Amino acid sequence: MEETQSASLSAISKTRLEFLFDGIFAIAMTILVLELKVPDLVVRNSIGELAHALVHHYPTFASYLFSFLMLGMFWYRHNLLYQHFQKITQVMLVLHLVQLAAAAFFPFCAALLGRYPTNPLSPVFYIGCVFVYVWATLGNWVVARRSGALRPEVTTEEYRKIRGKVLRGCLVISMLLALQLFRVMEG
Amino acid sequence: MEETQSASLSAISKTRLEFLFDGIFAIAMTILVLELKVPDLVVRNSIGELAHALVHHYPTFASYLFSFLMLGMFWYRHNLLYQHFQKITQVMLVLHLVQLAAAAFFPFCAALLGRYPTNPLSPVFYIGCVFVYVWATLGNWVVARRSGALRPEVTTEEYRKIRGKVLRGCLVISMLLALQLFRVMEG
Amino acid sequence: MEETQSASLSAISKTRLEFLFDGIFAIAMTILVLELKVPDLVVRNSIGELAHALVHHYPTFASYLFSFLMLGMFWYRHNLLYQHFQKITQVMLVLHLVQLAAAAFFPFCAALLGRYPTNPLSPVFYIGCVFVYVWATLGNWVVARRSGALRPEVTTEEYRKIRGKVLRGCLVISMLLALQLFRVMEG
Amino acid sequence: MEETQSASLSAISKTRLEFLFDGIFAIAMTILVLELKVPDLVVRNSIGELAHALVHHYPTFASYLFSFLMLGMFWYRHNLLYQHFQKITQVMLVLHLVQLAAAAFFPFCAALLGRYPTNPLSPVFYIGCVFVYVWATLGNWVVARRSGALRPEVTTEEYRKIRGKVLRGCLVISMLLALQLFRVMEG
Repeated sequence: MEETQSASLSAISKTRLEFLFDGIFAIAMTILVLELKVPDLVVRNSIGELAHALVHHYPTFASYLFSFLMLGMFWYRHNLLYQHFQKITQVMLVLHLVQLAAAAFFPFCAALLGRYPTNPLSPVFYIGCVFVYVWATLGNWVVARRSGALRPEVTTEEYRKIRGKVLRGCLVISMLLALQLFRVMEG
Repeated sequence: MEETQSASLSAISKTRLEFLFDGIFAIAMTILVLELKVPDLVVRNSIGELAHALVHHYPTFASYLFSFLMLGMFWYRHNLLYQHFQKITQVMLVLHLVQLAAAAFFPFCAALLGRYPTNPLSPVFYIGCVFVYVWATLGNWVVARRSGALRPEVTTEEYRKIRGKVLRGCLVISMLLALQLFRVMEG
Repeated sequence: MEETQSASLSAISKTRLEFLFDGIFAIAMTILVLELKVPDLVVRNSIGELAHALVHHYPTFASYLFSFLMLGMFWYRHNLLYQHFQKITQVMLVLHLVQLAAAAFFPFCAALLGRYPTNPLSPVFYIGCVFVYVWATLGNWVVARRSGALRPEVTTEEYRKIRGKVLRGCLVISMLLALQLFRVMEG
Repeated sequence: MEETQSASLSAISKTRLEFLFDGIFAIAMTILVLELKVPDLVVRNSIGELAHALVHHYPTFASYLFSFLMLGMFWYRHNLLYQHFQKITQVMLVLHLVQLAAAAFFPFCAALLGRYPTNPLSPVFYIGCVFVYVWATLGNWVVARRSGALRPEVTTEEYRKIRGKVLRGCLVISMLLALQLFRVMEG
């Protein structure tokens, strides 16, 4: 690997990683809806039966909407950070792939939570997925700084402010995960 | 959030939101087809049986085609408006996410309508989804004007003309939704 | 519609239509694979049973590969034509949406053909889908010429050569469709 | 075909092939997750039952993660090679379509391996898919050189170094495939 690296230094195209990122987010956000199943009705014209069947599945709808907005927010946050990078190193690529794997895994977690909202194990997966995503985000930010991949305009103060904000998010999620794991142990 | 905002003023990349938008529309339009199921036949070579099974599902096909063209039209309309924006504010991003959530929700509504075309509740979801989409479009346009996100070339007259057109669309959809809700109440 | 049109003349962005086109093609090509189902085995470790189950479904695999290459070829052909356009008119947009609806419909046709390869009605859908696609391509080319949307570099001779080639494709497909329809009538 | 070719020499847009490539990879990577099914539980709130059901399917999860990273690595490798091309010939387009067909086929192979991890035939498909992909990559590299599609900056030494590396990958995969085929014959 190292030879190619030296041959063409900034090997990973920032634009193409952006495409892959936006593509996977767009798909993960749209695939969420595949979990919403049209119910089977006995009386096809019955308003009451259809309403009842859909209301019965309201956690799935709530999980869909919540997850959609969550992924949208993650996408927006990535946007903010990404413009501060001037190049993408191999470690950062791996961390991005971890972020993307977590994002692509989201529809499964959303479906699990939507189907078994009262099972204490469902939120563990959901929060665990967010946990992986946010820590990889923090990793990206710190690694970018250490490997000189941040734009020179980013001041130390700005770097720390953003790191602090991302870190706080990581700690909140970690605490939520710990609490939920505790509930599972208890249960 | 506000700190990052001040650090890098025009935080949201117009191009990347365009990618996300086009990506979600492309996927929503293609996913519509996943609702078209190959029927199960008893006699695999029977033309009559296959024809009968497919004809039986014609509302699903009609719903597919109609929804595809509808999303295509929405995409085109967004195209027209989007080129008048010179930046994307946070409120506009949220409204875009609402639009995208409605677009991604379309395949479910189309499937519901295709499967239970005669159930009065099905069009409520379908029209309701369009309702959310068009009002968010109007919101985007008005908010863009108020927050100075429109290009300076856009004259007040032009702004009003477009707002009037979008508003008329919103009112028609709202009326259709009200009528359909009335039908449901009646039924 | 006409007002907006006059306000901003070349309303449809060529680049964005390209994104939508490439997006829908990428998705349609990848979604084809969703029709390939992992078979249910009685003896999970049995090589013979798995081999038998997969061989039994070989038309689905053949249909997948063939359709993938077909869409790839269509995509390439579109590439060749698209670079000759200097703008996209509204009629051309509608014709593009028809092309895209046909492309997005392909996975269904491929699944139908893969599941019932010997049913004479299956190829009707498959060829019919290609039929719609290629005639819309021809329409795009002719309309582009008539509405002055072709680049000035494209000579009349070149225009006719390409039109001739596309037309020949249309005629071949139309003949295949007629033959297949005849077979269905007979059967 | 040849006439159009002569009319517009470098007919295939490098950027659009990149879009298609990134699009299909993004989708294939995200679609992997569709194979992860939410289990059916008898007692909806039972932590033990849900845990048991998910643990029971751990090969599917492992297969998901492994395949995601594999596709990510392929995508990265393609990135490295692709920037050395200055144009795309028709043969290279066909080889790219073969690569993309293999990538789009990956979710099926991953699902097969995840469902029947102990069936000796499952890895044959999985490794076979990688086999097709890597040999097409090698083909692309060699063909690009022979048809003058490599950038002039690429020295003969560099060309050989990369070819050697890709070739080694091809040989390792071929050996793995041979071993696995041998196991199947034996079994």
